[in-house]
Amino acid sequence: MRPKIYLFGDSITQDSFTQDGWGASLAHHFSRTVDVVLRGYSGYNTRWALKVLERVFPATQGGVDDGGTDRAPLAVTVFFGANDACLPDRYGAFQHVPLHEYKQNLHSIVSFFRKQWPKSHILLITPPPIDEDARLKYPYSDNPQGLPERTNEAAGEYARSCIAVAEECGVPVIDLWSKMQQCPDWGKEYLCDGLHLTRSGNRVVFEEVITKLKDKGLSLESMPVDLPLFADIDPKDPLKAF
Amino acid sequence: MRPKIYLFGDSITQDSFTQDGWGASLAHHFSRTVDVVLRGYSGYNTRWALKVLERVFPATQGGVDDGGTDRAPLAVTVFFGANDACLPDRYGAFQHVPLHEYKQNLHSIVSFFRKQWPKSHILLITPPPIDEDARLKYPYSDNPQGLPERTNEAAGEYARSCIAVAEECGVPVIDLWSKMQQCPDWGKEYLCDGLHLTRSGNRVVFEEVITKLKDKGLSLESMPVDLPLFADIDPKDPLKAF
Repeated sequence: MRPKIYLFGDSITQDSFTQDGWGASLAHHFSRTVDVVLRGYSGYNTRWALKVLERVFPATQGGVDDGGTDRAPLAVTVFFGANDACLPDRYGAFQHVPLHEYKQNLHSIVSFFRKQWPKSHILLITPPPIDEDARLKYPYSDNPQGLPERTNEAAGEYARSCIAVAEECGVPVIDLWSKMQQCPDWGKEYLCDGLHLTRSGNRVVFEEVITKLKDKGLSLESMPVDLPLFADIDPKDPLKAF
Repeated sequence: MRPKIYLFGDSITQDSFTQDGWGASLAHHFSRTVDVVLRGYSGYNTRWALKVLERVFPATQGGVDDGGTDRAPLAVTVFFGANDACLPDRYGAFQHVPLHEYKQNLHSIVSFFRKQWPKSHILLITPPPIDEDARLKYPYSDNPQGLPERTNEAAGEYARSCIAVAEECGVPVIDLWSKMQQCPDWGKEYLCDGLHLTRSGNRVVFEEVITKLKDKGLSLESMPVDLPLFADIDPKDPLKAF
């Protein structure tokens, strides 16, 4: 069995296999080495994620299966916060999670993975920045207030908390909120509705994930390839390779 | 554990998670219901596939795991023939497999899956048509003869054999060779180098696979969703859903 990388998160994870998504790009990048497994739950915040964690990753997935293969993944990405950061007095209030609880929930999620899979790498990803004009233009439900349900400032606070959790736990983190804003036209370049990712935005996440995994020694070069590569098969005696 | 669909084939399978590939589209389509698992081996023909079959799908993947979950997949796509159909007197000769052996190998692959996973659906896919002009323009290696290493006529013979095997075994088949040629500009519209798929070509395969799976009762509507969908969560009492 091939090793796995789990992608755990909200809609930005669930949708990561469409539009040249970062999940699909990871699956392609690792196409002969790793199974990239999608566990994205659109709309979910860390409070709901914590409620379902044991169902998403049951204990039988840890340990060793009857083929003697380690079931623990190489890595798991944890990408929540965009929904927690919904403002508590706007139409997305039911998704809002207070900042201190978000931090605590992220800690609990990291602890869960640490306990279940002591050797797996955990990679936190902050929420992306928010383009408020686009959020007004593409509301997800009735918006009688005429105010954005998410702001970039609030997303930034959750991003900084995510980074703080990563530091406290000693795990790597992608500061997507800051990274994306390095591009002057980030709102249009990286976001299609002020929150979700364009093809370019997906590219940024893919490249950041690849870089962070490489920092932990997880690169294509370091991993065993599943069966002989075409380039390594001798045209004069192909069957020798098998 | 979620049910699985395995994608088993050559480069057209291995590359199915890039460029809006048909594999990525399937993973997105089934993002909350099924794990789409990539088992594509670039350059492989059915002879080599048969050599590695037991390593790609070890017996421990059949049966029931210690969590009581059936490990057999819902379905497996078998998509070989583009390499078998390389002409025996051109530069791709070492990938060539004679037509009668191709048929026999496909039979053996279907039998293997039938034995390993009696309840899983097996879906054969014929090789795509070949645009010979494009194959001359984008050779995969030195081509001193100046002749295409694959022809559309030969691909058609392998496609018809694949259909014959499907009929003999009573399993569904996608006649990609014929389907694509229904489009007048199929060579440019569906193929990027006379063999591999463009975004439109990937779309055709995705839609055909979805249709064939639906014919067998495997549709989004028929499958249990992994955890409550956002639309089913009550904004007035979200935690009730968990």
